[in-house]
Amino acid sequence: MIADQLAVIGLGSIGGSLARALIRAGAVNSVVGYDIDPAAAQAAFKGNVIDRIASSPAAAAEHSDVVILSVPVMQTREALAAVLPKLKPGAVVTDVGSTKGSVLADLESACGQLAPWFVAGHPIAGTEKSGAAAANPELFKGRRVILTPHAQQDAAALARVRRMWEAAGSVVIEMDARHHDEVLAATSHLPHLLAYTLVEYLAALDERREIFAFAAGGFRDFTRIASSSPQMWHDIVRANREAVLAQLDGFSRELAELRAAVAADDGAAILDTFQHARAARERYLELVEKPAETRK
Amino acid sequence: MIADQLAVIGLGSIGGSLARALIRAGAVNSVVGYDIDPAAAQAAFKGNVIDRIASSPAAAAEHSDVVILSVPVMQTREALAAVLPKLKPGAVVTDVGSTKGSVLADLESACGQLAPWFVAGHPIAGTEKSGAAAANPELFKGRRVILTPHAQQDAAALARVRRMWEAAGSVVIEMDARHHDEVLAATSHLPHLLAYTLVEYLAALDERREIFAFAAGGFRDFTRIASSSPQMWHDIVRANREAVLAQLDGFSRELAELRAAVAADDGAAILDTFQHARAARERYLELVEKPAETRK
Repeated sequence: MIADQLAVIGLGSIGGSLARALIRAGAVNSVVGYDIDPAAAQAAFKGNVIDRIASSPAAAAEHSDVVILSVPVMQTREALAAVLPKLKPGAVVTDVGSTKGSVLADLESACGQLAPWFVAGHPIAGTEKSGAAAANPELFKGRRVILTPHAQQDAAALARVRRMWEAAGSVVIEMDARHHDEVLAATSHLPHLLAYTLVEYLAALDERREIFAFAAGGFRDFTRIASSSPQMWHDIVRANREAVLAQLDGFSRELAELRAAVAADDGAAILDTFQHARAARERYLELVEKPAETRK
Repeated sequence: MIADQLAVIGLGSIGGSLARALIRAGAVNSVVGYDIDPAAAQAAFKGNVIDRIASSPAAAAEHSDVVILSVPVMQTREALAAVLPKLKPGAVVTDVGSTKGSVLADLESACGQLAPWFVAGHPIAGTEKSGAAAANPELFKGRRVILTPHAQQDAAALARVRRMWEAAGSVVIEMDARHHDEVLAATSHLPHLLAYTLVEYLAALDERREIFAFAAGGFRDFTRIASSSPQMWHDIVRANREAVLAQLDGFSRELAELRAAVAADDGAAILDTFQHARAARERYLELVEKPAETRK
């Protein structure tokens, strides 16, 4: 048992899926939920994602043993400040935000210190679907969850959040918040920016011609992540600005190199890039097809 | 009946799938195939994709009513030159290359003129799978095929190739070769270059850290096209160099604009880009989910 009462602040697909996974695993007895949008809270309640709707973040946190903040990252500070006055002694608060440096800065700002009972976390299980209707108790099964312990971290709180994710079927990894933000800027934030930019670019061209009608299946897959929540990604990009800019610059340099090879009609360089990329993607597929438990 | 005997030069997934679709539709009586790789020809024969293996492109073309060149685009000129001496009077030759300006230039170079019996075509039905093992008679069903008639085009030859694709279930559109190349550079060639570049870039980072292990499902979809044939895409990029460079530059300008918004922490501009892109992708999905027949 992770918690008698679990609070979920923010009933999107991540918070909703985690609530359902923990109820199903018998890891929590009851779930109280809050969402800034009353319709989202109603939908979560009707969909059996939560047992009770709270009227405020503080009301959700009150009497809860574990509080999950699953709000867009730029709302983390506000959510923390809201639950703080009603937090039960011994309760653990954790989050699911895609950036961790910003969340720890918010923690310090909201609490005046790196509160030992707060555990920063990030499940690597994105979906472009939003809302509690997308809640799926299997979402985290076999997926990695990164926890980024801070300097004042309480070991018991950390262990409890680890067990929570393991109960949802995830494989938990710990790393430094800064390293997390750099890695995710490369593997997740950069691809989202590229997908959004590509669709935006083609849409501008499309005002003159029938571009989209001639896009094949590859384009559809390539741009799937451009259907992700604009608000959520706006927050992520701003909250991880330095790392995002560094990755944008690194990618742009690589793209400029390929452009130079195309301009110079350097067939060997073009072929080499494509072959190398295909081989790298095959290694990636091997990696993700292995069960997460057997990976390092 | 489109052809008593059909020749397919190049037994990859496109050529193989078309052969199977036409046999199944009763549009051809027999298929003779050639591939530069004897093992590929054997696999196509054993997989019932072709009825007979020819020992050369010329031997495949001889006695054939329709000859399909389904080779990487940079091999088009050589394939044309090879079939030319044995071409049956009245036969029609067509291709499936992803670039059309280069193919028409190859035609003029190989034949000394824009031969009226050659019809340049391009099915918009990419797959990252290569080889005759990926032959799928349903591949072209409901998909668009672009034909780019040239200045000396024989109307009967054009009509015959149109009927051929319609027999395979496709919707045929005609446009100017130059326009085709510009549109495809944007919707297909550019996304492939971005996917290859992203994977190559991350692979280089990965030499120092565990980047790929933390890539989520979105990354997998985003980079699916980076598993496409390096040789085929090398050819496409070189054969459509001018249009590809123009699209790379247009995209890079758009990415630089987004970078500037991130650097300036301009939340409104970031959010606006993401919202606009998501709305555009939703229009695209509506477009592709309509049956092709009802689209203009």
